Amino acid sequence: MPGRILVVDDVATNRLILKAKLAAAYYDVLEADCGQSAFDRARKEQPDVILLDIMMPDMDGYTVCEMLKACPETSHIPVVMVTASGAPKERIKGLSVGADDYLVKPINDMALFARVRNLLRVKMMFDELKLRDSTSRELGLTDFLETIEEGAGKSETVMLAPAADSQGDVWKDAISKMPNVDVIGSCSEREALNMARFEMPDAIIVQQSIMQEGDSLRLISALRARPETRQAVIIYVVADGAIETAAKALDLGASDYLMEPFEPEEMIIRLRTQLRRKRYSDQLRSNVRDGLKMAVIDPLTGLYNRRYATQHMQKIVERAQESGKDFAVMMMDLDKFKRINDTEGHDAGDMVLKEFSRRIQENVRGVDLVARMGGEEFLVVMPDAGAMTAKHVSERLRRAVECNPFVTADGVELNITVSIGVSIGTEKDDDPGKLVKCADLALYEAKANGRNLVSFHEAA
Amino acid sequence: MPGRILVVDDVATNRLILKAKLAAAYYDVLEADCGQSAFDRARKEQPDVILLDIMMPDMDGYTVCEMLKACPETSHIPVVMVTASGAPKERIKGLSVGADDYLVKPINDMALFARVRNLLRVKMMFDELKLRDSTSRELGLTDFLETIEEGAGKSETVMLAPAADSQGDVWKDAISKMPNVDVIGSCSEREALNMARFEMPDAIIVQQSIMQEGDSLRLISALRARPETRQAVIIYVVADGAIETAAKALDLGASDYLMEPFEPEEMIIRLRTQLRRKRYSDQLRSNVRDGLKMAVIDPLTGLYNRRYATQHMQKIVERAQESGKDFAVMMMDLDKFKRINDTEGHDAGDMVLKEFSRRIQENVRGVDLVARMGGEEFLVVMPDAGAMTAKHVSERLRRAVECNPFVTADGVELNITVSIGVSIGTEKDDDPGKLVKCADLALYEAKANGRNLVSFHEAA
Repeated sequence: MPGRILVVDDVATNRLILKAKLAAAYYDVLEADCGQSAFDRARKEQPDVILLDIMMPDMDGYTVCEMLKACPETSHIPVVMVTASGAPKERIKGLSVGADDYLVKPINDMALFARVRNLLRVKMMFDELKLRDSTSRELGLTDFLETIEEGAGKSETVMLAPAADSQGDVWKDAISKMPNVDVIGSCSEREALNMARFEMPDAIIVQQSIMQEGDSLRLISALRARPETRQAVIIYVVADGAIETAAKALDLGASDYLMEPFEPEEMIIRLRTQLRRKRYSDQLRSNVRDGLKMAVIDPLTGLYNRRYATQHMQKIVERAQESGKDFAVMMMDLDKFKRINDTEGHDAGDMVLKEFSRRIQENVRGVDLVARMGGEEFLVVMPDAGAMTAKHVSERLRRAVECNPFVTADGVELNITVSIGVSIGTEKDDDPGKLVKCADLALYEAKANGRNLVSFHEAA
Repeated sequence: MPGRILVVDDVATNRLILKAKLAAAYYDVLEADCGQSAFDRARKEQPDVILLDIMMPDMDGYTVCEMLKACPETSHIPVVMVTASGAPKERIKGLSVGADDYLVKPINDMALFARVRNLLRVKMMFDELKLRDSTSRELGLTDFLETIEEGAGKSETVMLAPAADSQGDVWKDAISKMPNVDVIGSCSEREALNMARFEMPDAIIVQQSIMQEGDSLRLISALRARPETRQAVIIYVVADGAIETAAKALDLGASDYLMEPFEPEEMIIRLRTQLRRKRYSDQLRSNVRDGLKMAVIDPLTGLYNRRYATQHMQKIVERAQESGKDFAVMMMDLDKFKRINDTEGHDAGDMVLKEFSRRIQENVRGVDLVARMGGEEFLVVMPDAGAMTAKHVSERLRRAVECNPFVTADGVELNITVSIGVSIGTEKDDDPGKLVKCADLALYEAKANGRNLVSFHEAA
């Protein structure tokens, strides 16, 4: 997987060494010799990964990383801190400001390349997701979507697969201190795959087996390949110095790794970074899904719109042909609705439409299709319902409107009625449009006969 | 990248050998011992890649591949043919039935693994795209999208970067025979990157340099990393036996490779397969984009809907605050529209709404916002337009409706008029809703004063 990498270091020789290594692996390399120029190039040229030195004259790497993570144009670009000091404190500081990894000079090539490949893979998926999200953004759709506050309310689950139970207890103690994170028990490597498929945790921490090296790597590979855990965070804990195994794990799809011995704080920070990234990609996915849903939802009432109703009726017709069971089509129109808009104002009119929608939904089944066809016209289609059921339900709907007044925000009570036209579809019907027309004719009849009535279309 | 691989071979020993190789690289391996069971397992278990033997007792691999490619549930799963014969004719036959590659036994491990990694990467992107597409499908949105007929109309462009010009001419002759494919000239490796950024070809064929091996690999990596060519098909032509270079190219993002000497037909088939795959993923991408667009489009008239108008007006207000320029808000309502629906029928009413939309669009600028707010009510917002312009345009719109009758499908001529209310926004306005209300008040005035009129809201 190719990519563009920004190397940031104030010492030219250091840049040269890294550039040579990366170029030999066919990466495109950009350079920056101070914090400010790093930030500027990152914004302008949007590299795929940033390798960031810590000790620099104008500002230190921590500050640059914080700036990058705070800026919407660069916050999604992965950052790897590169430094001379391997002290746990420095390491934790680097990770806390949002770095994705922390490599100590002289850099181990295997660790560097495995990490770069891992981050490029993550970046590629993000770019694809963001592309979709930016379409919703341009269309102004995202403003209608609820934004998920970081960790707000919903708690996340972490599954542990340590090499020994005692180890699992230590991890559990540390992780339990994280807000909104639940540890859902630790299990052996062998049970982990099944348990994960069942529990679908947000994150899984797997420890390298002491006995059989391959088993834990196989577990990571399998977790990543299964649909239930494909999107989960996987953190791999390896023995001191097992950099080759760690690199393999990253290539097999681990999200991150921890090398023993480590401070519990480092585990928590890495886990937190990965969970944040997962929440972000989950949200990008759901933004698109919700944006697409908006294409079929009437914004005022939250009911399906005409577009969806047309499509969905076709399916109901097909299912009726298979099952041989009748279905009911009801067209409903609020009586003298224009008068409400004219005398009480549009806000009152909107309230009536919303309240009417609520009353319909209270009086039909979950499988029934309820849609606003436009204006004050609504459609209900009931699969698996004959003339008897339709008569019963449509009368109930008519009464549900008539029985209680609709109350405006100003406390004005409005007496509203509805006219309903019904047609019954059989297994012989293959044209939903025709059935809607028949229901429409019956509706006209109900209106003509004085309104506040249910009228049935009589098959010719 | 982990994955599940289905190994199909009637000889148990062959399956065992392949399984051992793949499992050592931590892949999840499924097995099938005949064509029918291969097809069944592929449908049921959805592997990520299929390795398919050709000689089998129940049906040959070609038939199985054709079945897999014809079935919607499996057509997206990559297939690699594995066989004892390396004859060009067999090879071309395998590729023609839709296989993604053709490996000769005994299998070269490097060729196998590079190919598997390449196919898994492609599959991963497809899965992500399909996930989105399936949402539109469930919502019935895709049925509204025009499906692109394979290669229909639009021609695709191929750029050549051969090691020598004479070579380019031979390729050009072969590719020019493909329907709907244009060769947009060949160029040297050094020019290729710039030319590709400018021309944005659908496919690029790059030849391994004879002099400097690294250069062509670097080109592939750079093409794949740049936004303009990130989604392009890249086919790499390598020298006889240069399997290591080919494997490297696949890892760097080449879509496929050809090893010299090859029949021109093989180049064409591989190119065709890759172009088909690109069309498919382009379409999945555009389906989502179009699906999202539907959330802001009124299906009857094709104008923006109220949801979009509300969002977009906010932006117009903000821009006016920056520029200090006025903008005009016009609410329009067709006069006595209900009467048309009642006397001429809904189809005539729909025609009037569509024709009215067309006339509005003919009489405003491209930068103006035109939206159907619901029923027979329309909104036009003109950025950078003061009272004079608004007066002129709204009068023109009024006349555009009055001057020519609207003709129904049955040839009935309807005389239609429109009432228009206008309010003018200034840099001091920050509430679009208020301006719409003012335009609405002016609209009521126009209606009250006898309809077919433009009325301006007078600022208090």
